[in-house]
Amino acid sequence: MRATYTALCEHGYADLTLRKIAADFEKSRGLVHYHYDSKDHLIVALLEYLSDRFSDRIQATADESPSDRLDTLIEWLAVGPSLDGVDGEAYHMAIFELRAQAPYNEALRSRLQENFSFLKTTCEEIIRDGIRQGQFRPVDVEMTTILLLSAVANARDLELALGEENAIETVLAALDHFIFPQLYATLGSDS
Amino acid sequence: MRATYTALCEHGYADLTLRKIAADFEKSRGLVHYHYDSKDHLIVALLEYLSDRFSDRIQATADESPSDRLDTLIEWLAVGPSLDGVDGEAYHMAIFELRAQAPYNEALRSRLQENFSFLKTTCEEIIRDGIRQGQFRPVDVEMTTILLLSAVANARDLELALGEENAIETVLAALDHFIFPQLYATLGSDS
Repeated sequence: MRATYTALCEHGYADLTLRKIAADFEKSRGLVHYHYDSKDHLIVALLEYLSDRFSDRIQATADESPSDRLDTLIEWLAVGPSLDGVDGEAYHMAIFELRAQAPYNEALRSRLQENFSFLKTTCEEIIRDGIRQGQFRPVDVEMTTILLLSAVANARDLELALGEENAIETVLAALDHFIFPQLYATLGSDS
Repeated sequence: MRATYTALCEHGYADLTLRKIAADFEKSRGLVHYHYDSKDHLIVALLEYLSDRFSDRIQATADESPSDRLDTLIEWLAVGPSLDGVDGEAYHMAIFELRAQAPYNEALRSRLQENFSFLKTTCEEIIRDGIRQGQFRPVDVEMTTILLLSAVANARDLELALGEENAIETVLAALDHFIFPQLYATLGSDS
């Protein structure tokens, strides 16, 4: 998985071959072929592995407050998560390229859907917990989740793919201004 | 340009060849080669053409009110623009794939940056007009623009690429709830 991850982030999906993955793998190329009969099987397995790692990291924050957890989630979405020494930028570019292939590749799409669904459910649970604990106002959970995730993810794509400088910073400031005052019970709705 | 556009939307960028473009072109394949010595030259020319068409359509709304123009812009971003009989969905999938290639392709990135820059400037001008005319509150124009464009664009990508149903509808409802009451002078900030 680590060899696949490193190779994907280094070469991108289109130029990725089993040979390049094996080059990052201490074992033989034959072993990669033995377990996975195509690049896409490996990529799908990698996405499942990344989702599990993400789940572990989320689980590790379970004792923190909903607002701290939401901050962490948004931070990961904006720049990370860095994993196994690959920087967050290379990771997100690779995922971006995979998403662009999704309409033409059912196995990829199905796995990316599961990963997004996990991210969405996680964010919804954090917001629901915050409402239960009185930290958040009783907002529409699904609507708030889609707006937060979409705004941050697209700003990141703009900054990484198009070099649109400060897109992430600007969108985070916009969330602070427009959304969080309506989400946090302790902030005035005009603050 | 029409043949390139149709072929791009039909085949996607990765599978696009000059031969496929020529197949949609009443003139000879030789003529396509004569004018454009690579697929990417054609794609860059197409993106410029699409930006010009978008500019014409925006120009045609110049007499409408800022709020009507903003509605139109968001609607185009969410589902269109349909052009030359290609549906908006195929168009956005093609652009999505091009954006994913941008980090690896300087000519593409540079042209996509220009197109995004035009979209952003247009949205900023509409909001600035609205503020001047008293229809919008004196919001931070850049921040509001990035938030609106990012939220809608990513919801569209989620719906088209991942089949995340109702993502566009949900994000538009979220804008109605969280953003527009703070943008429109005539709406209460809690409505």
